[in-house]
Amino acid sequence: MTATISATARLTGQMIIAGAYVRGTGTEIRAFDPAAGRTLDPAYPHGDGTHADAACAAAADAFAAYRATTSEQRAQFLDAIAANIEAISEPLVDRAVAESGLPRARITGEVGRTTGQLRLFASVLREGSWNGARIDPAMPERTPLPRPDIRQRFVPLGPVAVFSASNFPLAFSVAGGDTASALAAGCPVVVKGHDAHPGTSELVGRAITDAVASSGLPAGTFSLLFGSGPGLGTELVSDPRIKAVGFTGSRSGGLALVAAAAARPEPIPVYAEMSSINPVFLLDGALDSRGGDLGRAFVGSLTMGSGQFCTNPGLVIAIDGPGLDAFVAAAAEALVAAPATPMLTPTIAQNYATGVEALSQSAELVARGLPPERETACHAALFTTDAPTFLASEELQAEVFGSSSLIVRCADADQMRAVAQRIEGQLTATVHADESDLEDAARLLPLLELKAGRILFDGWPTGVEVSHAMVHGGPFPATSDSRTTSVGARAIERYLRPVCYQNLPKSLLPSAIADGNPDRLWRRIDGRLTQD
Amino acid sequence: MTATISATARLTGQMIIAGAYVRGTGTEIRAFDPAAGRTLDPAYPHGDGTHADAACAAAADAFAAYRATTSEQRAQFLDAIAANIEAISEPLVDRAVAESGLPRARITGEVGRTTGQLRLFASVLREGSWNGARIDPAMPERTPLPRPDIRQRFVPLGPVAVFSASNFPLAFSVAGGDTASALAAGCPVVVKGHDAHPGTSELVGRAITDAVASSGLPAGTFSLLFGSGPGLGTELVSDPRIKAVGFTGSRSGGLALVAAAAARPEPIPVYAEMSSINPVFLLDGALDSRGGDLGRAFVGSLTMGSGQFCTNPGLVIAIDGPGLDAFVAAAAEALVAAPATPMLTPTIAQNYATGVEALSQSAELVARGLPPERETACHAALFTTDAPTFLASEELQAEVFGSSSLIVRCADADQMRAVAQRIEGQLTATVHADESDLEDAARLLPLLELKAGRILFDGWPTGVEVSHAMVHGGPFPATSDSRTTSVGARAIERYLRPVCYQNLPKSLLPSAIADGNPDRLWRRIDGRLTQD
Repeated sequence: MTATISATARLTGQMIIAGAYVRGTGTEIRAFDPAAGRTLDPAYPHGDGTHADAACAAAADAFAAYRATTSEQRAQFLDAIAANIEAISEPLVDRAVAESGLPRARITGEVGRTTGQLRLFASVLREGSWNGARIDPAMPERTPLPRPDIRQRFVPLGPVAVFSASNFPLAFSVAGGDTASALAAGCPVVVKGHDAHPGTSELVGRAITDAVASSGLPAGTFSLLFGSGPGLGTELVSDPRIKAVGFTGSRSGGLALVAAAAARPEPIPVYAEMSSINPVFLLDGALDSRGGDLGRAFVGSLTMGSGQFCTNPGLVIAIDGPGLDAFVAAAAEALVAAPATPMLTPTIAQNYATGVEALSQSAELVARGLPPERETACHAALFTTDAPTFLASEELQAEVFGSSSLIVRCADADQMRAVAQRIEGQLTATVHADESDLEDAARLLPLLELKAGRILFDGWPTGVEVSHAMVHGGPFPATSDSRTTSVGARAIERYLRPVCYQNLPKSLLPSAIADGNPDRLWRRIDGRLTQD
Repeated sequence: MTATISATARLTGQMIIAGAYVRGTGTEIRAFDPAAGRTLDPAYPHGDGTHADAACAAAADAFAAYRATTSEQRAQFLDAIAANIEAISEPLVDRAVAESGLPRARITGEVGRTTGQLRLFASVLREGSWNGARIDPAMPERTPLPRPDIRQRFVPLGPVAVFSASNFPLAFSVAGGDTASALAAGCPVVVKGHDAHPGTSELVGRAITDAVASSGLPAGTFSLLFGSGPGLGTELVSDPRIKAVGFTGSRSGGLALVAAAAARPEPIPVYAEMSSINPVFLLDGALDSRGGDLGRAFVGSLTMGSGQFCTNPGLVIAIDGPGLDAFVAAAAEALVAAPATPMLTPTIAQNYATGVEALSQSAELVARGLPPERETACHAALFTTDAPTFLASEELQAEVFGSSSLIVRCADADQMRAVAQRIEGQLTATVHADESDLEDAARLLPLLELKAGRILFDGWPTGVEVSHAMVHGGPFPATSDSRTTSVGARAIERYLRPVCYQNLPKSLLPSAIADGNPDRLWRRIDGRLTQD
C-alpha cells in the first residue's frame, strides 16, 4: 500500500514537513556524482527558519500522542520503516551510489545495516528493559518514618534534531542510528539531511513518512529539512521545542552545535560524534611474527571507502625495529598499488588534500597511493615520525578525513605508553598482540580504556558491529558525550530520562511499573532484578 | 584503630589534601551559629589555586590504582567511612547543629541518612549491575562477515569535583550523595567544603581520610578544600584532571560551574542540582473533602527546616472555590502561629528576605509566620495570585529559598493545566487527589512527567527517600542534566562511561565480562539478561 508511493524513484527536490512536501526557498543545492564528475538533478532548495519552525512546531504537537504509543506500536513503526526502505532498495541503492561514489556492494550492505538497526531497536522496544523499571514497595510499618511506594521508569526527552552524516548516506543519515534510536525512545525527529546526498535523503524520508501515515501516528513525528549548518542547523538546535541533538560529522560542526545548545536558555544534550584518528598499537611479538601481513591488512583498512570512516586507522604506534620495518615496507608496497577512489564530495576531497599537505610539512612521507585521475579522488598517503616529535606536536593528532595515516616510531614500550597517554579521546584503539605481548598489552589496556570507547585486538577499527554490546563513542573530542554510544542498543538511552512516581494511584500507573508486571519486564524490585 | 584519630572533635581549621593536613592561605572564614547568633572557632583560611592544583594532581595520581580496586574493596571502603562517621556521631552532631541551626533530631537523622547512603552504594557495588556487563558472543560462521566477540562494561570517568550544599551539612556535603556515588564508581573525589559548616566538613573529611588509609587506598583518593566558588571552585572545574562535577546549590552557582565546564578545552559533565519551586496541585475532590487538613499539612512541609529544602513546596495550584478557601484559611491560621526558626547563614536569610520582598510586590500576601527575634531567622510567608497573573510573569516562578510559597488560583482545570505547562523544570510535582479527581489527575500526569523528576500523590515533597527507584533530578533549571538523579542508587551512573572490548584475549578480560561469569553478575548476553 505505502510501497506504491515510495517505490517511485522520481525525486521532487522537496523537503517533508510533518507529511507535507514543501519546496525550500533558499540556495539550490544539487548532489554531485564524484565517480562520474557530474551534478545530479533535481535541485534541492534549502529551507529557512520558517521551515525549521514549522517542523519543530509539528514535532512538539506530535510528542504527546507519539510518546503515548506502546513499545509494540513503536516497534511496528520501526519495522514498517525498514520494510518501506527494502521495498525501494533498488532505486535507493542506485541513487546512493551515484551521490556518494561508494561501491555498490558497500551501499547495498549499508541498506541492510540501516534496516537491521531499525529492527534492532524494535527488538529493544519489545524486550522492554529500556523502561528502566524499578519499584521500591511501600513500608508502612517502617520507623521512624514509613516508606512510601516509589517507582521509576524512563520517559522520552522530547523532539530530537538529527544531523545526517556525509559518509553513511543511509546508516547515519535520515533513517540512521540517531533517528532509529530517537524514534524508539518515543521522541519525534526533525532531520537535517546532508547536502551530499539529498536524493537518497528524500527517498528515505518518504519511506519514513509513509510509515508514519500507515502506522496512524501524528504527522509531526517526522520531518526532513535541507539547509545550511550555521543557518537552519543552528535554528533547529536553538529551537526551544527541541530537547536533544544527534550529530555525526566534523569537529568544527559538532562543536558549533554544542555551543549553540549550551547558549540556549534551557541547555540540552548534544550527542556529537566528531573526530577520531583511531590509534593502532603494534606490539613487538605481533610485528616480529607477521609484520608484513599486518602492513598489507592495515592498508586494506586504511583505503576502504577512501578512508572516509570515523574509525579509519589514522595513527599507528610501534617500537622501532625489523618487525616495524617489515610492516612499513609491506604497507608502502600495498599503498603504492592502491587505486585512487572517489571521495564523497569535492569539499571533502579538498579538505583531505589540505590535511595531507599539512602532515607532509611535519612528518616524513612513506608512500602514496596511485595518483588520482580526478581531483575528487583520494590520493592515499602514509607518513611516519618519531615519538618525541609526535609528543611535542598538536597538529600531528589532527584528523585527516580520508586515507591518510601516520606511523609513530617509539624507542621502547615506555615511549609507546607515553604516546598512548598523550593522544586525545578516540572512538577506537586497536592492539595487535601475540601471546608473547600479553604483558605489554595488559599494561597498555588501562590507558586505552581512558582514551577510547572501543578497544579491539587483532582486527582493524573500520567495521562497526550493530549489536547490544557495541560502543561507538568515546572521550572528547571523539564525541561530545562519552557516557553514551551512537551505535548499538544502548543508543536509545541518549533520549530518555528517569521519572519517579511516589504513591501514584494504582489506576494511573504506567504499565511498565504497574502491579502484576503486565508487560512481563525485567524490573528492579527493592534493587533486585526480577521478571515477576 | 582509625577511630582514635577521628573521635577527637578538636578542630584544626585545616584542609586535607591527599591525607595531609594543610592550612589555607586566603580569607579566613568561620562558621556562624545562627541559633546563638555567634561565630564559631576555629578559623578556616581559604585555599587557593596551588591547593586546587595539588588536590587534582593527587587525585589524578590515585586514579589508576583506585579504579583498579574491586567492587568489594570499594564497598568495604564505603562501609569504613560510614563506620568512622558513626564513631564520631556525637561531636559531629554537636558541631553540625551549631553550624546549621537545624534541630538536633534533624541532624541526627541526617547522619543516619549519610551512612545509609554510603551503605546503599556499597550494596550497589556488591550487587554488581553497575558494571553494565554485556556480551555479544562471536559468530565466526556468520556471512557475509563473521561477528567478532564484543563485550561491554562501564569504567569510571576520572577524578570528580564535589561541591557541598549548605542545607545538608552531612547528606549532601563532604561524605554526601555526590561523594559516595563518585567513590563507588571508582572516581577519586576532591570536595570543596561549604563555608557554612567547615567544622562539620573537617570532621567528616577526617573520617574519610582515615578510611582511605585503613583501606590501603592511595591518599589522593580524597581531598577536602575550602575556598570561594568563583575562585578555587572555578579552578577545580577548569582543571584538566577533573572529569566530572557534582554540585548542589543555587541556580547562579550551578550555572557558573556549567559555564566553566563548557569553556574547558575538554568539556565535562556537570551534575548541578539547582533550583525548584516544587508545584503542588490540589484537585477539587481533595480540596472539598479535606481542604483544611491539607492547608495545615502544607504549612508543616513549608516550614520544616526553615523551608531550606530543594523540595520545599513553593507553589500551590488549585481551582478557586470553597475548598481552596478552606485550604487557605487553615494554612494562614497555621502559618501565623509558626515560630521563626534560624536559617543556615546570614546570607541565606538576607536572600530570603529579598525574595519575599520581591514576591510581595507582585502577589498578594496571605499570611506570615511569627516575627523573628533575630534577623537570621526565617519569617515564613504565604502569597496568592491568580493564574493569568502567574502565566504572564517570569518573576513569580523564581525560587525563594526558605519558607515562602505562592498559591495560584485557577478558574478551571484547563487553566490549571496551562499553569502546569508554563512552569519550568522541577525536582518534584505533587498532586492531592481524591477518587473523584482521578480523571483530572490522569490528564495532568503526562504534563507533569515532562516537568519533574519525581511526581508524588497525597504527600509532600520534602523528605526524599534514599532508595533504588528514587529520582532527585529533573528538567532544567531544576538540574543541569535531567538524565540522572543525585539521590538513590542510580546516582553512580553519573560517573561512568561504557567501554567495549572486541576480541580481547581471554586473559585480559575484566572479571565483570569474563567467561564463566566469575562475579556472578546479571549480564546481557546477546541482549538477553542472565546470571549464567
